[in-house]
Amino acid sequence: MSNFSLYEHRLTALLQQCQAKAVDALIIPASDEHLNEYLPEAWKRRDWLCGFTGSAGDLLLLNPIAIPLEKPCQLFVDSRYYEQAPLEVPTGLVSVSNVGQTGHATLVEALEKAVLLKSGNNTSLSFTVGVDFNTISSAKFKQLEARLEKLPNPITWLNTGRNPHWVDELKQAQNPEDALFPKLHAVFSLSDDLTGCSLSEKLGNIRQALQANQAGLLPITKLDEVAWAFNLRGADVAYNPVFIAYGLITLEKAFLFAEAQRLPETVQQGLRETGVDILPYEAFFQTIETLLNSPSETETVRSTWLDDATHTAKLFQLIVGCGTPIVAKKSLIEKLKSVKNSVELQGMRKANLQASVAITETLAWLWQRGETQQPTSEKDVADFLESQYLASGASGLSFNTIAGAGANAAIVHYGTPSSEKQLELGDWFLLDSGGQYPTLAGTTDCTRTTVFAGKASAKMKPIYTAVLQGHIACAGLAFPKGTTGATIDAVCRQPLWRLGLDYGHGTGHGVGAFLNVHESPIGISKGYSIPFEVGNITSIEPGYYEGGWGGVRLENLYEVVERPALGDATSRWLGFESLLYIPFERALIDESVLTANELAWLQAYSRAVDEKLTPLLKTDLARAWVENQRF
Amino acid sequence: MSNFSLYEHRLTALLQQCQAKAVDALIIPASDEHLNEYLPEAWKRRDWLCGFTGSAGDLLLLNPIAIPLEKPCQLFVDSRYYEQAPLEVPTGLVSVSNVGQTGHATLVEALEKAVLLKSGNNTSLSFTVGVDFNTISSAKFKQLEARLEKLPNPITWLNTGRNPHWVDELKQAQNPEDALFPKLHAVFSLSDDLTGCSLSEKLGNIRQALQANQAGLLPITKLDEVAWAFNLRGADVAYNPVFIAYGLITLEKAFLFAEAQRLPETVQQGLRETGVDILPYEAFFQTIETLLNSPSETETVRSTWLDDATHTAKLFQLIVGCGTPIVAKKSLIEKLKSVKNSVELQGMRKANLQASVAITETLAWLWQRGETQQPTSEKDVADFLESQYLASGASGLSFNTIAGAGANAAIVHYGTPSSEKQLELGDWFLLDSGGQYPTLAGTTDCTRTTVFAGKASAKMKPIYTAVLQGHIACAGLAFPKGTTGATIDAVCRQPLWRLGLDYGHGTGHGVGAFLNVHESPIGISKGYSIPFEVGNITSIEPGYYEGGWGGVRLENLYEVVERPALGDATSRWLGFESLLYIPFERALIDESVLTANELAWLQAYSRAVDEKLTPLLKTDLARAWVENQRF
Repeated sequence: MSNFSLYEHRLTALLQQCQAKAVDALIIPASDEHLNEYLPEAWKRRDWLCGFTGSAGDLLLLNPIAIPLEKPCQLFVDSRYYEQAPLEVPTGLVSVSNVGQTGHATLVEALEKAVLLKSGNNTSLSFTVGVDFNTISSAKFKQLEARLEKLPNPITWLNTGRNPHWVDELKQAQNPEDALFPKLHAVFSLSDDLTGCSLSEKLGNIRQALQANQAGLLPITKLDEVAWAFNLRGADVAYNPVFIAYGLITLEKAFLFAEAQRLPETVQQGLRETGVDILPYEAFFQTIETLLNSPSETETVRSTWLDDATHTAKLFQLIVGCGTPIVAKKSLIEKLKSVKNSVELQGMRKANLQASVAITETLAWLWQRGETQQPTSEKDVADFLESQYLASGASGLSFNTIAGAGANAAIVHYGTPSSEKQLELGDWFLLDSGGQYPTLAGTTDCTRTTVFAGKASAKMKPIYTAVLQGHIACAGLAFPKGTTGATIDAVCRQPLWRLGLDYGHGTGHGVGAFLNVHESPIGISKGYSIPFEVGNITSIEPGYYEGGWGGVRLENLYEVVERPALGDATSRWLGFESLLYIPFERALIDESVLTANELAWLQAYSRAVDEKLTPLLKTDLARAWVENQRF
Repeated sequence: MSNFSLYEHRLTALLQQCQAKAVDALIIPASDEHLNEYLPEAWKRRDWLCGFTGSAGDLLLLNPIAIPLEKPCQLFVDSRYYEQAPLEVPTGLVSVSNVGQTGHATLVEALEKAVLLKSGNNTSLSFTVGVDFNTISSAKFKQLEARLEKLPNPITWLNTGRNPHWVDELKQAQNPEDALFPKLHAVFSLSDDLTGCSLSEKLGNIRQALQANQAGLLPITKLDEVAWAFNLRGADVAYNPVFIAYGLITLEKAFLFAEAQRLPETVQQGLRETGVDILPYEAFFQTIETLLNSPSETETVRSTWLDDATHTAKLFQLIVGCGTPIVAKKSLIEKLKSVKNSVELQGMRKANLQASVAITETLAWLWQRGETQQPTSEKDVADFLESQYLASGASGLSFNTIAGAGANAAIVHYGTPSSEKQLELGDWFLLDSGGQYPTLAGTTDCTRTTVFAGKASAKMKPIYTAVLQGHIACAGLAFPKGTTGATIDAVCRQPLWRLGLDYGHGTGHGVGAFLNVHESPIGISKGYSIPFEVGNITSIEPGYYEGGWGGVRLENLYEVVERPALGDATSRWLGFESLLYIPFERALIDESVLTANELAWLQAYSRAVDEKLTPLLKTDLARAWVENQRF
C-alpha cells in the first residue's frame, strides 16, 4: 500500500466513525496532551492520519453525509508549510488551506461554513463538533466556541479524547503492534553548576511569584516547563531533552507526576528531601481535584494559576468545575524560564560556540565539495553536519536539520534532507540546524545559506545582501528598556521591503537553555508584546523565499545584554550579543550597497570570529574558508 | 487669591466632602461624559480643581483622615506632561506621579497602596472609592475594579456623578455664575460633496456592519463619532468641530439626542426624512432601556454593540442591567471613520496644502525676524501663525498651538505660548499647530522645529538630523498589507537609538476628516495592532526632548496609499503619501551622514514642494525661504 493510499484508508475509516456517531466535524489538532510543538511518535495523531509532518497545522474532518464537499478533509497550514503540505497529504481527500492567503479559510471559518452548508436556512438544525479536549489549548477552544456560538444553530461539543480516544482506537485496530503511549526513557537531573539555581531555590522563587499574584496552585503541563521547574531532563521527545510528566506546585507542596522508577534512586531522594512528592503520571488531574476540594484557610490557597495558551481545555474545565478561583495569567514558568541566569547564559555561550565550530567545518567542507565538483546530496550535508555536532559535544540535534537545495530552500521548514536531491552548481543551499549539549547545558540554532560552488546569479546577490542587512539592522540595535519584539520586527524587514520583498514568518523566537529550541514568551514578531530583559535569548532570522526558485535565511542566536546609555543616562538601554560566530558568505554580499554602519558591524563580527571561533577550528580547510570570508 | 491658593481652596473643600461622606479615595478622571480628549469648559472638572491643563492625567484625592500622606492629592501624568504638570498644580497639596518612570505609581498602584495604608494588617477593613461612572471608560473602570478586587479588603464603589455631581456641586457653591452644562452652539450639516457619503448611505453601511456582527443596537457616545455618523458638525468644544449629542442606530431606526432647535429647520427635515428621530439629549439612556426592554422577534435586535474603551462604565452597567446580549467589539464608527473615502481624502489634501502655505509663510517671517534680530515672543509667532491659518481658509485651529522657545521646546504639549518668553538667538523653537477647514472639510496637524536666527550649536545638528532620518525612514516605507503601526514604530526611532536617544510619545496618530486631530484606531506606536488600510491618515512625528535644554519634533500627516508590488506580485503593498509640503531646515541637517536613500527622499520632497506649495505662496519672502531649503 502506498503512503497516500494508507492515509486515505485511515481518513476514510475515521470519516465513517464520524458518520456512525453523528459527528458533523472532527478536529484533529496538531498538538498533544502537553501542547508540545515536537510530539512523541505515539501522539503524532494528525501525522499518522494524513501524512503531514509540519510542526503546526490542524486537520478538520467533515462528515460527507451532512456536509457535501469535494474533499471531506482540510488541513490548515501557515506560510512555512504552503510548499510542503500538498506534497505530503493525499490530496484526493484533503484540501490544503494556506492560512493567511486570500481565499483560504482558517479552521474556524471552515467550521462556520460547514454549519451553514449543513443547515442551509434551517437555523434550528444542530451541529456537533468533536475534538479531544486535552490536545487543544483552552484559548483555542474558547475562541472556536465563541465564534460558533454566534451562529443561530445550536452547537454541541463532543470530547473525543479518552474512553477511548477516537484516533487511538483506530490506530489500535489498524496497527495493533503500535504503542498508544509514548516510549519512556530515563530521566536525569541537571546539577546546580549547570542550572545555576538549586531546586529548593527555584521552588522558593516560584512560590514567591505565586504569592505575589494571590495564587496558591500552579499546574505545570508543558514538558519543557516541568523539566525546567524540577531541574530534570529526559529523552521522550525527539530533539527536546524533556520527559513526559506533569508538575504541580502549591505554596506548601510540590508534586512530580512521573513513574518514580524512571528516576535514579539518588534523584528521587533529592526530590523528596526538597519536599517533592513523586506520583504516577495518571494521578495529575485527580490530585488537583482533591487539593481544590480540600478545606483551606484562605481563598488564595485554592486559587489556581491558569494560562489559556499553555493549559488545555480539559484542565480548564476541570478547574472551573471545582468552582475555586482562577488566576488567569500568562504562564509563570515560561516567564521565569525566559530570563536566563548567569550560569545558564555561560552554558548557552559555550554550546553555541561549539555549534559554530560544527557548522563552520561543514560549510568549509561543502565549499570544497563545490570547488572540486563532487556529487553531494542534501542528506550528505545533513549527515556530515550531524557528525560534526556530535564531535563538538552535542548529544544530538535540537531539531531535524533543514538542508534544502535549489527550490527546496524555499520550503521554510523543509525537514527531510534527501539523498536523491543533489546540490547543483549555482543553486541555493539553505542549512538550518541546531544541537543539544548536555554537558554544557546549552541548546543551539543557526541558519546559513550559500550557493553551491559559489556561482551566484545576478538575482541572488541583492537578495542575500538585503536579508543580511535586515539581520544586521536588528542585531545592531541598541534600544531603551521597555521595547518589545513587536516594535522592532519591521527594522529587520526594512531592507527587504525596499525591494518589495518580505518573509511570511516571524523575525525571531526565544530558545531554551538545554531545552526546546522554540520558547515563548519573548521573540521578535507582531505577537510578542513583552519587553525584552537582560538574559533573554532570541534568534534573529530574516529570510526570503520564492517557490520554485529557492530562498535565503540568515539566523544567529543572541542574548539580550545591557548597553551603555549614551544620550539618556536616566534609562537602561539594551542590545543583542551574538552567541554564534560563523562567517557570512562574502561572495554573496554586494558590498557596494552596504552603509558604513553595516560594514562596521560585519568587521566587528569578523574580528569576533577570529578571536572566538578560529582558535577552536579543527581543519586548515575551515581556517582557510573563514579567512576568505573576513571583512 | 492667587491661582494656586484658589486650587488649594477647591481641593481642600472636596477633601472635606470625602471625609464627610466617608469616601476614602475619590478619582477625578481627565475625561468627561463623552470621554472627550478635548473637553468643553464646563466639564473640565479636573482642570478646575487642580489647575492642570494637560489632555490626559487623572487626579486622585485621598481622605487624609483615613490615609495619612504628606500630600492628599496625586496627579498621574505621562511623559508628555512631566515638565508641565508641576508648574500648574499647587504642589503643596498635589504630588505629581510621572507614570512610566521608576518609583512613580500609576493610579491603580496608588489606590492599592492607599488601601494598604488605611487598613494596615486589618484585611476586614473596607475601603470606599468614589468616581463619576459616566466620565470613565468601562475598560478603565473594569481594570481598576479587577485590581482592587484582588486585595483582601472589601472595596465599595460609589458613583459620585449625577444627583448631584460632587465636583459640579462644589463649583456651583463656589462660582454660582458658572454654567454646569456646556454652552451649546449651532449645529450644521456637511453636504454630500464634502462627506462623499450621504446620510442614508452611511446608515445603510452601519446597519450592514451591525448585521454582519449579529448586533442590533449601536449607542454612539463619542462626539466625533456622532458628528461623523450623521454628517453634522458643531462648535461646542474648542478646536473640535463637534457638538454635544448622543446617537443611537438600530437595524430599523436611528436617533439623534440633541435639542432640535440647535439644527436648522432644513437639516431637521432632512434627518427626519432619512428616518432619524431627534430626541432631547437627556433621553439617551432612557431610550436605550426602553428599546432593550421591548419585545423583539430575534435576539440580534436586542444585542448591543459595546466598546469598553469608548463607552463609559455607566452605559455598560445600564446594558448589563437589561440582561440583553452584548457584542463586545472595538468601536464600529471609529473603524469606519478611519478609512477615508475619495472625497474626504480630497478635502484633507486641499486643507493640508492650505495649512502648508500658512506654516511656510510663518516660518519665513520668523526667519526674517531672526535675521533682523527683532524681539519676538512665543505668542507673537502663535498669533502670526493663527492669522495665516485664518487667511488660508481655516475657521480656527485644530488644537492650541505649541510654540515653545528654548527649554519650552522640551515640553511636549506646551500649550500656552507666552508673550513674556522671547526667542533667543540660537535657541530651539518648536511649532506644532493645525487648522480646521470647514469649506474643504479638512483637518491639519504639523510640527516644524527651527533655531532662532539659524545659529545652531554643535549638539543641535546631529539631533535634528537623526529626528529627520527617523521621519524619512518611516515616511519612505513600502510595506505589505497586514502591517500594523506597532510593527513599524521602531523604524522611526532607529536613527535616534543609534545615538542612545529616544522619545517618550508614540510615533503617529490618526486624524479625522474635518473632525478631531487625534483619532483611533490606527496610528504608529506599540498600542496600534490594526493593519493599515488605503485611506487611513496618520501623522509621523518623531522627536527628541531634553528638560532644560529644548527639543525637536518633525511632523507631517500622511495618507496610506497603495504601492506597486515590486518583488512579490501576489500581495498588495502600501506606503505613505504626504499631505503637507513644508521644507525642513537645511541649515540644521548634517548632510554628511545622510544615506543615498534619505537624500533621494528629501530631493523628491523638495520637488513636490516646488510643484504643489510654491505656486500658492503669497510673499517673496516665503518663496525665498523655500528656495534656501531646497535639496
